[in-house]
Amino acid sequence: MPQKFIVIIAGGRGERFWPQSRTARPKHLLPIVGTTPLLAQTLARVKGLVPVKNIFVITGAAQAKAVRAVCRNLPAANIVAEPLGRDTAAAVGLAAALVGARDALGVFAVLPADHVVRDTGAYQADLRAAFAAAAAEPVMVTIGITPTEPATGFGYIQRGAAWKIFAGQALYRAKRFVEKPALAVAEQYLAAGGYVWNAGMFVWSVSVVGAALARLAPELDVGLAPVRAALARGRSLAPVLKKAYPKLPKISVDYALLEKSDNVVVLPASFDWDDVGAWPAVVKHGASDAAGNVTRGFAVVEQGKNNLVFAEGGHLVAVLGTDDLVVIHTADATLVCPKGRAQEIKALLKRVEALKGGARWL
Amino acid sequence: MPQKFIVIIAGGRGERFWPQSRTARPKHLLPIVGTTPLLAQTLARVKGLVPVKNIFVITGAAQAKAVRAVCRNLPAANIVAEPLGRDTAAAVGLAAALVGARDALGVFAVLPADHVVRDTGAYQADLRAAFAAAAAEPVMVTIGITPTEPATGFGYIQRGAAWKIFAGQALYRAKRFVEKPALAVAEQYLAAGGYVWNAGMFVWSVSVVGAALARLAPELDVGLAPVRAALARGRSLAPVLKKAYPKLPKISVDYALLEKSDNVVVLPASFDWDDVGAWPAVVKHGASDAAGNVTRGFAVVEQGKNNLVFAEGGHLVAVLGTDDLVVIHTADATLVCPKGRAQEIKALLKRVEALKGGARWL
Repeated sequence: MPQKFIVIIAGGRGERFWPQSRTARPKHLLPIVGTTPLLAQTLARVKGLVPVKNIFVITGAAQAKAVRAVCRNLPAANIVAEPLGRDTAAAVGLAAALVGARDALGVFAVLPADHVVRDTGAYQADLRAAFAAAAAEPVMVTIGITPTEPATGFGYIQRGAAWKIFAGQALYRAKRFVEKPALAVAEQYLAAGGYVWNAGMFVWSVSVVGAALARLAPELDVGLAPVRAALARGRSLAPVLKKAYPKLPKISVDYALLEKSDNVVVLPASFDWDDVGAWPAVVKHGASDAAGNVTRGFAVVEQGKNNLVFAEGGHLVAVLGTDDLVVIHTADATLVCPKGRAQEIKALLKRVEALKGGARWL
Repeated sequence: MPQKFIVIIAGGRGERFWPQSRTARPKHLLPIVGTTPLLAQTLARVKGLVPVKNIFVITGAAQAKAVRAVCRNLPAANIVAEPLGRDTAAAVGLAAALVGARDALGVFAVLPADHVVRDTGAYQADLRAAFAAAAAEPVMVTIGITPTEPATGFGYIQRGAAWKIFAGQALYRAKRFVEKPALAVAEQYLAAGGYVWNAGMFVWSVSVVGAALARLAPELDVGLAPVRAALARGRSLAPVLKKAYPKLPKISVDYALLEKSDNVVVLPASFDWDDVGAWPAVVKHGASDAAGNVTRGFAVVEQGKNNLVFAEGGHLVAVLGTDDLVVIHTADATLVCPKGRAQEIKALLKRVEALKGGARWL
């Protein structure tokens, strides 16, 4: 029997939840929803699916220290820091190398660290079915999310014919990948049915990923060869990664592998899911007052509705006469923006960066 | 020749400029406009008009310490703290007592501490003319502000016939006092002409005020008798005030004296004037960027116009995609409100007060 592994991708640049999130403290390290960091929630959610020693976390250099603090119950060697970001294909290649060094026949799930899922039972059942499929057949299993709105921020996968059933769950062939669509197109998908969101959750075997890399992304495959060699010889990984990473192509796993493969299958998720993409998404996870205001800390809203107001460290944030406003106060920086503009924080952070000494707030 | 005195009224509850202003640190103690407290600006503005020893400041108990710090060049005895607020008639009565103890024939100006005036030359020229009138005739001189808009936050005085000329300035009889009018009424006044704002600036003699108090506000006059006695005997003032003040009627000088007197004259101000009534009024005194944003401290506005954004103590306030918003950050509290709602801070502060331990922010 092949061993099962889980590789949690804990990256991200910490922009969308600024000022709570920062380069060294991105979303997955924060209790954006709930009371523990989203990474800790992700670790708790997979508990029992695989042995603890079979859980890896791939993160970035700037965040590694904080990630280790959250992952204290994992073996230290299982937390691997990429020296610089090289998009998801490189991370998947690194994951395959890490898992392959333990079990060349292993199957592994790639899971983002910063999503919110409440139904842990359904989540684990889906992953078990996906593991079974990936262990039995040379496929790339994507766990697809049934769309609840015509979102333009996700890639879509069109389901093809039913393929097989594992652990009581039907899997489908993937017919087509679509990158983030325009609103009108997304609306058509929703109306047509049969589309799922690509949420970055994949289950596959080391051999399937290895073969795909060799065939479809040879530069990446060759670039990661020294990493595999170091792992095989039990050498220290950090210096090898530092040398190898700058040369790796920067490309997403969707572009590099999935869109070009004919062995992708879709398992429609049976659990609730939210990627909590920006501040306004936090509202639906928080308790609101009668006027729809969601607050945390010492926050007061007078004559206003549907505001999101967070205050840290005993500071008071008092909001008067505004609706649909996001006000996030932290120890050294405060954000004020309408909910409808929260997706544009990047432009704001460019302005912050341009301030004298502005990097201190990033 | 009667001596001239100036009595600066430095009171107020510090609500309209919350959270910068607080009970113990109201508007006149803050550099709301400019770089020094408005009280310091007022002191600088009257410099040379009267000897320093002839300048009094009347303030409240909670603010006295901070007021003394601003008024270091005045004799300590000239800063008098009211044990509790009893409106402006009591303060004027106290002022008359203080001045009368120095010179029973003295004339004195009552001036608010928290207005903004840039043309010091014109301001002093007007006060000199008012002093001359009050020294020569038994009148109550009010310095009236020519309205620039149909403001509903001030009382209006209708000018009557030209009365006399002092120091080259024409003074007019006061025909009628009108309390804060409705907008339509204020608009009529502006269209009609001949109305000025009552800005709380008065010049008169001790004897005129004393006679008016005795005739029109005998309770106040009797209530302040122990204060005059203590001053005459060189006794310590604080215990006498503490005993006398709670019994004084709480009434404005406009109601108590001016509206009922037939010896009120108006000197139309020849200087610029702004009482800077609330946060939005600060905008016209600050340098703005191309989009009309006025900022202080580390403040960034991206894609927004006509915002007022203050940040204290190295904290960054970043505003994205809002117009006409007031964001005031201080060390322990932050206010967010549209400019059009800034007059309603009182309601907000009631909510703050209701918080557990909320008094700490007032």
